[in-house]
Amino acid sequence: MSPIVEAVDMRAMGARAKQAAYALASLSRAQKDQALLAIAQALHDHSPAILQANQRDIAEAEARGTDSIWLRDRIDLSKRLAGIIADVRHVATLPDPVGQEYGHATLPSGINVRKRRVPLGVLGVIYESRPNVTVDVAVLALKTGNACILRGGSDTLNSNLALLTALHEALASQGITTDAVQTIPSTDRRYVTELLRLHEYVDMIIPRGGASLHDFCRQNSTIPVIIGGMGICHLYIDPACNLDAAMPVIANAKLQRPAVCNALDTLLVHEARAADVLPRVVAELGAQGVRFKAEPRALAVVGHMQGVEAAQEGDFDTEWMALTLGLKVVTDMDEAIDHIRRHSQAHSDGILTDDAQAAERFLNLVDSAAVFWNASTRFNDGGALGLGAEVAISTQKMHARGPLALEELTTYKWIVVGQYTARP
Amino acid sequence: MSPIVEAVDMRAMGARAKQAAYALASLSRAQKDQALLAIAQALHDHSPAILQANQRDIAEAEARGTDSIWLRDRIDLSKRLAGIIADVRHVATLPDPVGQEYGHATLPSGINVRKRRVPLGVLGVIYESRPNVTVDVAVLALKTGNACILRGGSDTLNSNLALLTALHEALASQGITTDAVQTIPSTDRRYVTELLRLHEYVDMIIPRGGASLHDFCRQNSTIPVIIGGMGICHLYIDPACNLDAAMPVIANAKLQRPAVCNALDTLLVHEARAADVLPRVVAELGAQGVRFKAEPRALAVVGHMQGVEAAQEGDFDTEWMALTLGLKVVTDMDEAIDHIRRHSQAHSDGILTDDAQAAERFLNLVDSAAVFWNASTRFNDGGALGLGAEVAISTQKMHARGPLALEELTTYKWIVVGQYTARP
Repeated sequence: MSPIVEAVDMRAMGARAKQAAYALASLSRAQKDQALLAIAQALHDHSPAILQANQRDIAEAEARGTDSIWLRDRIDLSKRLAGIIADVRHVATLPDPVGQEYGHATLPSGINVRKRRVPLGVLGVIYESRPNVTVDVAVLALKTGNACILRGGSDTLNSNLALLTALHEALASQGITTDAVQTIPSTDRRYVTELLRLHEYVDMIIPRGGASLHDFCRQNSTIPVIIGGMGICHLYIDPACNLDAAMPVIANAKLQRPAVCNALDTLLVHEARAADVLPRVVAELGAQGVRFKAEPRALAVVGHMQGVEAAQEGDFDTEWMALTLGLKVVTDMDEAIDHIRRHSQAHSDGILTDDAQAAERFLNLVDSAAVFWNASTRFNDGGALGLGAEVAISTQKMHARGPLALEELTTYKWIVVGQYTARP
Repeated sequence: MSPIVEAVDMRAMGARAKQAAYALASLSRAQKDQALLAIAQALHDHSPAILQANQRDIAEAEARGTDSIWLRDRIDLSKRLAGIIADVRHVATLPDPVGQEYGHATLPSGINVRKRRVPLGVLGVIYESRPNVTVDVAVLALKTGNACILRGGSDTLNSNLALLTALHEALASQGITTDAVQTIPSTDRRYVTELLRLHEYVDMIIPRGGASLHDFCRQNSTIPVIIGGMGICHLYIDPACNLDAAMPVIANAKLQRPAVCNALDTLLVHEARAADVLPRVVAELGAQGVRFKAEPRALAVVGHMQGVEAAQEGDFDTEWMALTLGLKVVTDMDEAIDHIRRHSQAHSDGILTDDAQAAERFLNLVDSAAVFWNASTRFNDGGALGLGAEVAISTQKMHARGPLALEELTTYKWIVVGQYTARP
C-alpha cells in the first residue's frame, strides 16, 4: 500500500468496515484469540521491516527539528516493540465480553427478556504520533468483535503502514477479512472530517490526542465522540490528613509520569494544614525538580521557597503535563469542591484524610470519572483498575467513564423470546 | 413567564442547569419521590389552567388547519391529563438507580474499587407537539437526579408553560431549585442550535420527533445525541412457523398502534411459505383496513387480492406509521437478514418459527436494539420490557439501546479507596 494516494473513498471504507463488523460479530472467542496470537507472531516476524519504517519516521521528524524527548516518547518503537507484542499476547488471555447475557426476566405478558453483549460495530479512531496505538486499537477492537478505521498521525505514517502490513497478513492467515482493520492511507485532514460524518457506518469516534483534536472532533462529528484523555487532576488535603502517609501519594501522583492525563496538577490544602503541608510539599517535591504555581494564600506560606512563583490567570485551568504543581489554600471542603467543579475536567480527583465522613462527602459531591480517597490519581487507568488494556480514558458521561476497556467497547441488544406472544 | 421574550441567554440557562444538577445529585430517594407526589398534586390542582392553556393551543392549531387526528393524538390533553398525573405517581414507586454500587474489587495494589451509579447531569430534550413529554421528561429526570432543559414545539407552547408553572410550584414547595426543569421560552430555532452546542453544561441530547429533527440534532450537536424513536420493523416467517399461532402476533405488530415506532412495516416470508402465509395475511389484515406493498415475488402470489399493489422504489425504506405493510418473499434466512441489515433502522426485528436453531441464528445475526423470537415487535417499549417509564427508544449503539428508562438516565463514577496508596 502506498502512503500517497490520489483520493480516498471514505464511504466505501465505511461500508467495507460495516460488512467486516457483521463477520467479526460472529467469531468465537477461540477464533479471535487465535487471530491475536497470529498478530503477535506477525509483528515479531515483521519486526525488522517495522523498525526500518519507524527509523524513516524518526529521521524525517529529526529533519523537521522535532524535540528529542517527544521523538523518544511518541514515535520511536525500537525499545517498545517487544512490549507491544507481549501486550497483544496478554489481550488474548483476557475474558471476552461478547455474548455475555444478563438482566434475565420473565414478564407478566409471558415474554422472556435478557440483554446480550454485542460489539459496538465500527470504531473510528483518530490519533497523533504513538504508532503503538495502531496495534493497541486494532487488537482491542478485534477482541471485542469490532471493525475499526484508523487515522494515525502524519509523523508516523511509515510505521503505521508497516504495522498494518503485519496485522493484515495475520488476519488473512486466519481467514478474517482485512477490512476489519483499515487505515486511512492519507494524512489529508479532509478525510478526518469525512470520517466524522460517516454515521451510517461508524458507531463511535475515539480521538486520542490533545484538546484541539477533541474539539475538532466534537465540532465536526455526527457520530458520538468519546471525549477524554485530558485531566486537570486535584488532590485535596483535609484537616484530618496523615501527612507522613500522604506524601508518597502526592509524590506518586505528580512524579510517576508527569506527562500523562492522570498526573496531579493542583494540590488544594485546607487552611488548617497550610503551615505544615505546603512547606514540606515544596521541599520534597521541589528536590525532585517540581516547580510550583501558588495562589496568594499559598504564596504567603511558601512564597519565599525556591521554585515557587505566583500563579497567573489560567494556571489552574492548565493541564501541566510537566513537573509543575499548582498550590491553593482553601477555607473548607466546600471551597475545594467548588474549585474542582470549576477547574477539573472530571477526570481524576481525590481527598487525603483519615476522616471517613469527610471522605464520603467528597466522593459524593465531586463528579469526576474517578474519585479517590487516600489513593493516587494515577490509578485511573485500565490496568490499574483491573480491566486490562484500554483504548482511552473517558471524561464524558455517556456510555463509559474512565477506562474504555474491553467491556466498554461493547453494547447490548435486547433478546425477547415469546410463545407467539402478542403485546397485551 | 411570558411566552414571548426578547432574547434567551442559553449559556446562563446551561450554567443554572449544571448548578441545579449538583443539588439534585445529592437528593435522597425519599426527597425525590416526595417531590414527584407534590408534582402530581400540583398538576391536579392546576388542571383547569392547564386545560385552558391547552384549549388555546388546540384553537390555534385548528385555525392553522391542523389535521384533527393529529390534534387529538398529539396536542389535546383533555382526555390524558388524569393519566399523566397517575404516571407521575407511578414513577414515585419505581426503584431509584442512583447510588447503586456494583463491580466491587480489591486489586493487587491494595486499592478497593467499585462503580457507583450517578445522574448523567443535564439532559437537553427537544420535542414536537405532545405536551405530555414536558411532564414525562421532567419527572424521569428528577427521579434520576438530572436537571433538564426542555424545548417543546411551538404548537403547544401555552400548554407547556402551564405545565411548567405547576412543576415549578411543586419543586419550590419541596425546596428544590426550579432551575432543575427549565424550558426555552421561545420557539425560535436558533435556540435549539445554541442548546446543541452547550457541551460545557449539557451531557446528553434526546430528540423526540421525526427523522428531520434527529438529523438536525446530529448535524449540529457537539453533545452526544440519542438517535431513536424511528423504526422500520420486520418480521420474518421461517419455514417452521406455526401460522395459526403467528397470525395474532403479526396482527398485533401491525394493528395495535400503527403510528408508533415499534409497529410492523415489512413482512418477510420464506419462499416455502409464500403460498399459505401471504394470502392469509392479506385476507385477515386487509379486513382490518391494511393495504399492502408487494415486491414482485410476493405480488405474483397475492397481486390479485384487494388492497395489494406493487412496491415502489423506496417503499422498503419507509416507516409507514399507518395501515400499510410491505410484503417480500425471500429464498432463505440469509436473504431475510440481508434485507433487514439494509433496510431496518436497528429498532425491532423478529423471527416467527418453531425451529430453535434458526431462531438463535437470526437473533445473533440481526443487530437491532431488540430482536424477537415469536413475539411482537410492539414489545420494544419501557413498560413492556419491564423497565417502567422511558423517555425514548434508542436505536444508536452507545450508552443505551432500546428503552431509555431510569437506569439509562444515569452513568457511573469509579470510587477508588486506598490506605494512602501510591500506584506501583
